Amino acid sequence: MTISTNRNQQVQQLKELIADMDYAMLTTVDDDGSLHSRPMYFNGDIDAEGTLWFFTSASSHKVLEIEHRQQVNVNFSSPNQQRFISISATAELVKERQKIQARWKSELETWFPQGLDEPDIALLQVNIKRVDYWDDPSNFYAKSMSGLAQNI
Amino acid sequence: MTISTNRNQQVQQLKELIADMDYAMLTTVDDDGSLHSRPMYFNGDIDAEGTLWFFTSASSHKVLEIEHRQQVNVNFSSPNQQRFISISATAELVKERQKIQARWKSELETWFPQGLDEPDIALLQVNIKRVDYWDDPSNFYAKSMSGLAQNI
Repeated sequence: MTISTNRNQQVQQLKELIADMDYAMLTTVDDDGSLHSRPMYFNGDIDAEGTLWFFTSASSHKVLEIEHRQQVNVNFSSPNQQRFISISATAELVKERQKIQARWKSELETWFPQGLDEPDIALLQVNIKRVDYWDDPSNFYAKSMSGLAQNI
Repeated sequence: MTISTNRNQQVQQLKELIADMDYAMLTTVDDDGSLHSRPMYFNGDIDAEGTLWFFTSASSHKVLEIEHRQQVNVNFSSPNQQRFISISATAELVKERQKIQARWKSELETWFPQGLDEPDIALLQVNIKRVDYWDDPSNFYAKSMSGLAQNI
């Protein structure tokens, strides 16, 4: 896979890299400076602007961490394929009903059994700053995409 | 898997959870506050004290990040088994020749072709503060082990 500097092409490249990945690990920083990760179900929801979207409960501890400190890392691992992706990003909580409805998919019922009636249901909007990825088992130097950063 | 409060039992539990995991993602914080991850080869090297050991190049950027800010996250993902482990930890560089030699394994030659003659070869000692893990696809609430923290 060659590295493109064109933004749309990079979004497309990233989509392909994570197309078959069902889970990401989201790492946040707590008030005491410690770093926590947790798995997040990913249903391929990366939009044309290269923004990643995850469903979350608005009252979860990670949301509190993000409200205090927006910088996060989202990483995808496929150890069998030796493919690893690190996304340096900022995250923000989105509670707009219209956006939540538009992104809802029935497979999310595993974690939100009441679906869109779940009282705390919300989105995490993940704005990409930098992508590093490894897709070649024989070469462990990262390839990077820096063209995905948005001026936000 | 039940949660034990006994330290030795927790080390054993963690060993079992990550026994078949060949790679971890190590997340560090850069000087500008951004979070980066990269895959680290893990050869099952967790000692009786529950400390994780990884080989690294002493001149890599992650070592610089760790020298500026010791707090890291190490996460293991086995998406096929839906098993995910988050380890909140501090990391430090270890350059003692004796320790490097004692932990060397030939499979590391993929990344260190010159083996122990590699000029920059060193260890990252990862001191666990907290472990959260998810091993049940139907339940996405974390199980935690806090008994692994060491007074260091």
